[in-house]
Amino acid sequence: MILEKVREISEIPVYERSIENVLSAILTTGDFWKIVDLSEEPLPLVADIIRVLEEEGLVKITDKIELTEKGLKYVKNLGIGKRELNECEFCEGRGISLKNYEDLLKKFKEIVKNRPMPKHEYDQGFVTPECTVARIALMNSRGDLFNKDVLVLGDDDLTSIALMLSKLPRRIVTVDIDERLINFIKEVAEEIGYKNIEVITLDLRKPLPEEYKKSFDTFITDPPETVFAIKTFIGRGISSLKGERKAGYFGITRRESSLDKWREIERVLINDFNVVITDIIRNFNHYVNWGYEEETRAWKLAPIKKKPEDIWYKSYMFRIETLKDSKGFDEEVKVGDELYNDAESSTT
Amino acid sequence: MILEKVREISEIPVYERSIENVLSAILTTGDFWKIVDLSEEPLPLVADIIRVLEEEGLVKITDKIELTEKGLKYVKNLGIGKRELNECEFCEGRGISLKNYEDLLKKFKEIVKNRPMPKHEYDQGFVTPECTVARIALMNSRGDLFNKDVLVLGDDDLTSIALMLSKLPRRIVTVDIDERLINFIKEVAEEIGYKNIEVITLDLRKPLPEEYKKSFDTFITDPPETVFAIKTFIGRGISSLKGERKAGYFGITRRESSLDKWREIERVLINDFNVVITDIIRNFNHYVNWGYEEETRAWKLAPIKKKPEDIWYKSYMFRIETLKDSKGFDEEVKVGDELYNDAESSTT
Repeated sequence: MILEKVREISEIPVYERSIENVLSAILTTGDFWKIVDLSEEPLPLVADIIRVLEEEGLVKITDKIELTEKGLKYVKNLGIGKRELNECEFCEGRGISLKNYEDLLKKFKEIVKNRPMPKHEYDQGFVTPECTVARIALMNSRGDLFNKDVLVLGDDDLTSIALMLSKLPRRIVTVDIDERLINFIKEVAEEIGYKNIEVITLDLRKPLPEEYKKSFDTFITDPPETVFAIKTFIGRGISSLKGERKAGYFGITRRESSLDKWREIERVLINDFNVVITDIIRNFNHYVNWGYEEETRAWKLAPIKKKPEDIWYKSYMFRIETLKDSKGFDEEVKVGDELYNDAESSTT
Repeated sequence: MILEKVREISEIPVYERSIENVLSAILTTGDFWKIVDLSEEPLPLVADIIRVLEEEGLVKITDKIELTEKGLKYVKNLGIGKRELNECEFCEGRGISLKNYEDLLKKFKEIVKNRPMPKHEYDQGFVTPECTVARIALMNSRGDLFNKDVLVLGDDDLTSIALMLSKLPRRIVTVDIDERLINFIKEVAEEIGYKNIEVITLDLRKPLPEEYKKSFDTFITDPPETVFAIKTFIGRGISSLKGERKAGYFGITRRESSLDKWREIERVLINDFNVVITDIIRNFNHYVNWGYEEETRAWKLAPIKKKPEDIWYKSYMFRIETLKDSKGFDEEVKVGDELYNDAESSTT
């Protein structure tokens, strides 16, 4: 009944479990952003589910979202409980130790104090410094950094600065559409006297310049989450790799992608690109609230117009490796907004 | 040159990176089992690579495996460094906190003191108690345990005992081929007065009884790693699930499966079973050395006949979810040894 009503108003695949996940999250917190975080359902779907639950008298919305008496009974009948996180307190659930990287973290934090702030236009939003440095520790633990040629495709996180400070890669190339970031990274490189980095401005709708194809051991990117953008960004990354058994890293969230979309993404990876997925690490990437919340679709959809107090936007870290017969994607794509937006997106 | 020589003697896909991974591991440790662990290449391939490296005068084998002077130069020229683990010291890299499960861990340890020892015949080998309990914490954090019907397919790890102690599931069904385990679990259930468990003896070559199809919310299994066994065990698991958005957990190792086999496994999951992979957690499962090492192919292949001192056999934890159009595998399979063994296996 609730399921049918949500199905009527939502374009996003919805299941009994989606509703259960949202109810379980509401049992745990009254904050909309945290409900999205805990339920792991796409934000627009969570908003629709809450709307229907309110219509059905199961939820009331004041300055917080809570179950009514009827709602509490409903949840009890279905045997739904609170959602427990059980994330390791020390590594925030990443499984990665920063012990060998404390000095790097300190320097990185100091340098990025003056970073350019996120621009909505480019779907920007950066992760915490701990997270950026954990990426270095992760990539190094997999043998993907030391003496390797590394390509950073889009760098609002300033991963290339952490890479420079680590002194691990042989060569770094950073590509971004945003001149402000390009200039900031260049200035830092000059300041710390780092030579082995090239920083270039490019819209990734266009293919990589020929000289960057088949040239890298490792790439990292954080694509917008339309299947099309993923195909483009990760496809470019794979094309940039020297050949077999090279690695790629990227974040995929549950906030803007249903598991149905995840399956499509995995099909692209395994069937079109012929790569293997070696790691999917939950909530590895924690995004600092980016400041332009009120301009987003997420804000319009939020049942309570209150800015998030804590980090709620997180993504899983994927690692892939190329094998025999892996291939990337080199064509130019001629789309505008569809690169960034589909029914499930809300922060782009 | 080394690559070609290894290709001549090995049936397992081998890449420049495979050799690099082994060299990097040898730089870090002289112990064969740890080299397999760190390099993340299949054991029989690691043995072959070490043999060729020895023939080429790059490695010498005494009571340990080490690089010769020529080997050290070779590694330096290629720019290969030591392998760093960077695993979180607190959660052993699982990302999962046991804080809420300390009492359960204590009870579990006490009960399993008298467990039946692993049998080679059934490819048995159990994980550490910390690991079994971390599985409970993991599954509960994903909403897959509380008030759920859980199927355990093969249970030398005694996960069903930890499940009983947690009191989280509504119902547990445990299937195993080994009467000793079945009886042990039954005895424990009686001892602690737990009623909601059924324990049945079944060879998973046969389909599940009809009454267990479409009956569970969650399954967990730890299949032998031939593609065929994975198809059978996980396919049975998926068939047992009630429908959409239900979860399955299983371990896949790098010790007995090349990344080429991983890609095949992922194709089965995504294309044949139509499920989505939501998590791949590195080295989540740590296997206690099982005692019958000297009977295994791994022992025959080991260049030094010395029993492993530490845990070296680890597997990644996969979590999948069913979606619209997911389906399992119900047919009876009539194979013998091929269920357990392929070119990459060595401990079965």
